[in-house]
Amino acid sequence: MISARIKQAVRDVNDFPKPGIVFKDITPILKDPALCIEISKALADQLKGIEIDVVAGIESRGFLFGPSLAQLLNVPFVPVRKAGKLPYKTIQQSYDLEYGSAVIECHQDALLSGQRVLIHDDLLATGGTVVAASKLISQLEATVVAYSFIISLDFLNGRERLTPYTQKVFSLVSY
Amino acid sequence: MISARIKQAVRDVNDFPKPGIVFKDITPILKDPALCIEISKALADQLKGIEIDVVAGIESRGFLFGPSLAQLLNVPFVPVRKAGKLPYKTIQQSYDLEYGSAVIECHQDALLSGQRVLIHDDLLATGGTVVAASKLISQLEATVVAYSFIISLDFLNGRERLTPYTQKVFSLVSY
Repeated sequence: MISARIKQAVRDVNDFPKPGIVFKDITPILKDPALCIEISKALADQLKGIEIDVVAGIESRGFLFGPSLAQLLNVPFVPVRKAGKLPYKTIQQSYDLEYGSAVIECHQDALLSGQRVLIHDDLLATGGTVVAASKLISQLEATVVAYSFIISLDFLNGRERLTPYTQKVFSLVSY
Repeated sequence: MISARIKQAVRDVNDFPKPGIVFKDITPILKDPALCIEISKALADQLKGIEIDVVAGIESRGFLFGPSLAQLLNVPFVPVRKAGKLPYKTIQQSYDLEYGSAVIECHQDALLSGQRVLIHDDLLATGGTVVAASKLISQLEATVVAYSFIISLDFLNGRERLTPYTQKVFSLVSY
């Protein structure tokens, strides 16, 4: 089972990014190229039967598997980035952090109205960034049709924040 | 020719990140999944005959093609990231920016002594970040055996800053 292999590879790092948090470190996964190929395929397999026009991946760790996933689905990959990184005209969406706020962007011409978008990131935690990415996609009159993560931390209830967009929230591993 | 197709896809954005700079925007490439697959293969083909143990990719755009390249070479992928992003114990390298400086990191256990490392990024400009990544790899007693970029801006003379590490500096497109 791929989920068991992922769980075996992921490294728990205590007290990152702050005391009390156990961070799921995926860098050991990246050391295993065969596992990486299988992860991309498993992410694509979960989406069978869903019509997807575009994969939107969230900077930075969503860039590690998002392009491969888009290639397997034979659709464009759109990067969602932190403010100030994308060179062309952008649209923006702010979201709250524990202290203060942050802004993510995508290019104005990243999506066409009506396109069906899969949002991908490596890990679903509280869902704040992913909700902001969903709002970006709505700004461009495109539709979020599914979410795809390698890992979801279900005890943080991120899934519940995504279901207003779509019930199709997939992950290969849940904690 | 893949170089012509890349040049056709790349978008020039004037005055980014500041007045007078013409930025090479690769996001249109990402909209073409078939071209992305061919780019990864072409990056791997350029490296034939070079023994490579690890691909190190530089955050964030080095994450877009670096993992696929590592998978094609059947070797681990190591992320080189901005300071404060990697959860486990890290080693650091600072480098100068036009105003001030920046720090990149990789995990202490990312590489083994003596490993032969390919450094990948999407684009070679002045080479500042890439030289810092090379120093990181030297800190871990590993060796840079080649550099791989999609695009190199040769008029910025980045290649000359890399040749002290290795003469093997590859790109699919040069300007």
